[in-house]
Amino acid sequence: MKHRVVIVGGGFAGLNAARGLARRPVDLTLVDRRNFHLFQPLLYQVATGGLSPADLCAPLREVLKRQANATVLLSEVGGFDVEARTVELADGRLEYDTLVVAAGVRHHYFGNPKWEAMAPGLKDVEDATEIRSRILRAFERAELTDDPDRRRELLTFVIVGAGATGVELAGAIGELARYTLRREFRRFAPDSARVLLVEGTDRVLPPYVPRLSAAAQRSLERLGVEVLLDTRVEEIGEHSVTLRSGDERWLVPCATALWAAGVQASPLAALLARATGAETDRAGRILVEPDLTLPGHPEILALGDMIHLEDESGQPLPGVAPVAMQQGRFAADSIARRLAGKPGKRFRYSNRGNLAVIGRAAAVADLGSLKFSGYFAWLLWIFIHILYLVGFANRVLVGFQWAYSFLTRGRGARIIANSSSERRGTRPRA
Amino acid sequence: MKHRVVIVGGGFAGLNAARGLARRPVDLTLVDRRNFHLFQPLLYQVATGGLSPADLCAPLREVLKRQANATVLLSEVGGFDVEARTVELADGRLEYDTLVVAAGVRHHYFGNPKWEAMAPGLKDVEDATEIRSRILRAFERAELTDDPDRRRELLTFVIVGAGATGVELAGAIGELARYTLRREFRRFAPDSARVLLVEGTDRVLPPYVPRLSAAAQRSLERLGVEVLLDTRVEEIGEHSVTLRSGDERWLVPCATALWAAGVQASPLAALLARATGAETDRAGRILVEPDLTLPGHPEILALGDMIHLEDESGQPLPGVAPVAMQQGRFAADSIARRLAGKPGKRFRYSNRGNLAVIGRAAAVADLGSLKFSGYFAWLLWIFIHILYLVGFANRVLVGFQWAYSFLTRGRGARIIANSSSERRGTRPRA
Repeated sequence: MKHRVVIVGGGFAGLNAARGLARRPVDLTLVDRRNFHLFQPLLYQVATGGLSPADLCAPLREVLKRQANATVLLSEVGGFDVEARTVELADGRLEYDTLVVAAGVRHHYFGNPKWEAMAPGLKDVEDATEIRSRILRAFERAELTDDPDRRRELLTFVIVGAGATGVELAGAIGELARYTLRREFRRFAPDSARVLLVEGTDRVLPPYVPRLSAAAQRSLERLGVEVLLDTRVEEIGEHSVTLRSGDERWLVPCATALWAAGVQASPLAALLARATGAETDRAGRILVEPDLTLPGHPEILALGDMIHLEDESGQPLPGVAPVAMQQGRFAADSIARRLAGKPGKRFRYSNRGNLAVIGRAAAVADLGSLKFSGYFAWLLWIFIHILYLVGFANRVLVGFQWAYSFLTRGRGARIIANSSSERRGTRPRA
Repeated sequence: MKHRVVIVGGGFAGLNAARGLARRPVDLTLVDRRNFHLFQPLLYQVATGGLSPADLCAPLREVLKRQANATVLLSEVGGFDVEARTVELADGRLEYDTLVVAAGVRHHYFGNPKWEAMAPGLKDVEDATEIRSRILRAFERAELTDDPDRRRELLTFVIVGAGATGVELAGAIGELARYTLRREFRRFAPDSARVLLVEGTDRVLPPYVPRLSAAAQRSLERLGVEVLLDTRVEEIGEHSVTLRSGDERWLVPCATALWAAGVQASPLAALLARATGAETDRAGRILVEPDLTLPGHPEILALGDMIHLEDESGQPLPGVAPVAMQQGRFAADSIARRLAGKPGKRFRYSNRGNLAVIGRAAAVADLGSLKFSGYFAWLLWIFIHILYLVGFANRVLVGFQWAYSFLTRGRGARIIANSSSERRGTRPRA
């Protein structure tokens, strides 16, 4: 019988692990609760009406259909039995010889879980379509109201957290209000909308060098985004957000708040840690060995955003796609080496650079020795993102929509989802 | 003050009425409960994973942004006060001098409303994504089960009604099973799926001539679709459909049933009929005057699928996009004539032909004197549908995806939506 590998999670880490095992003598099962791989770095464009969800999704079965040693299962993992070497699924169990867990992260509200309803985060497709509906519905309601205070509240957007996701969301909402929606409303000017980007540290994009942070902030401000540094959120209500900076505290009436401030590991990380006795950090990420295995369990690897691993300088690796992809390829290689009786290796992240986009022709690039911002950073960002998108069709679809949007400022995927109460069909249809 | 026109509904009829009033001396308000115009004729392609919802949606504001006399409101209509000449909205009321109502239709389950949960119909974007999820999830579950009876049930799809929508859905599911999903599953052959198309009359596409119906049936059968004529549905359960033909009655175990059999007018038709004393037919459609006004109310027009109007031969006009578009343009023209003091006209439908598509290179065309099927009908169908799509970007996106799908048999938009129970985040993420 062939060596059985079970991979949990079809994100960047899990999918790269699966592909890396293509020609290896293993029997591979990839389990995910979704039937597609999602290109998360562009999810903010779905949330702001620029792209459709399917443009960023590659069906896992399609990606792996030519890989004869791979079976894809759509199921939820309920737990791990590391003694029996089985994974419990909602509909059965899977036996493994090697287990790879790469289940990612969810939002984290720092002890305020009730904020989630008011300020959704952006991690999966449904988050993105929900955020899109909220943003667009706020503009629609502003057209319906005659009350200037209510309109002010509807046209105020607060984004919490100025990491890459927060910056991208703020920039995209700024562009939407300033350009895309121009001339579409009769009772107010869409560019009167306020977009507030709230950050607890002293600059946007904290992982970048201060010069690039400053460039990003200038780009945001050109789009009308108000950047509030050294500012924290104290409370999020249905109609307002309470901010605090130093001793000052104030209330911002706003109908739409978005969360881009914190993440925590998938609940599967806690299950796996409990089953193996591994430790977790404050965000629930598993502390793994340098070869990505779990302590005392060389047959279990954990990858991607849900692990805590430090580089040579003692800095934890960031939760970004390149880290996850490299870990996925490393895991596949590591399994193959072990099967061939070769010694294991340590995982080393080869950081080829970081990119963040603010808006049209505005991005920052940190390529190690080369750090720059502006138009060329933006072109590089486009190139890299098209290149890493899975699937030829998705590349063309995204490329065309970006070109079209560049020329027209339009955003075509502006659908407000029907809420479930409306779906029950009790209300008349207009 | 300008003449105030309120249009309820931004479908083919309402949107064409609004555009037709572009250069007329009126103050126009278009109210819809959705923020987009939906190109319904291609919705079955969203339901079968070929296109994304946004490819068929044009934001109403964008379509009308250059039309200075038009205001778009996203709201639900709750009723009409024809004495006071107002429309009640969920958030206020609108005064009108002329009212145009074009609120469309919904599914109709012939006195069995509980069937809706088991056999969804295909009218709006959420219907399409729900159907897509059900079809794809059935295949996914078939890969998870070891029980051959359960797998048989999961791989049986019953489509009720062989009008255009039923034929298109059946053909597309046949293609999905035979071509798109080939090689994507390891535990069964997707082309072992059964697709049953159930029709109460003696042929598919009853509005077409028998020769074209026969051609369509042959095309369906080439895709593996089993066509059951003179057959009615007696019961729809969660795991089966009971069919009856003559004295014979039998039960088909099936996990997925889809409804394409009947429609009824929007509840707004009943509200409008009650307010004006107009009559409705069995499907709730309003009987209008030959000029599309309501009896005794020359200031109210009703258009599109929600009205009952007969042509010269006494046949009711079909609920198709060309009828609705022509009625929309007629309504705009009619309002303009009345404002100019010119006499009214009767609406006459100019039938330029009917087209239905079965699958790749298979369609039927009835252009009056010219009736044909096969490859050229299919090319014509493609040309017409690209032509009538609203928006340049949507045309390119749909065109590219069709070309890609033609070359690869792929369908890129295969997303299974998270159900709401999964969304609550109680289950661990795999």
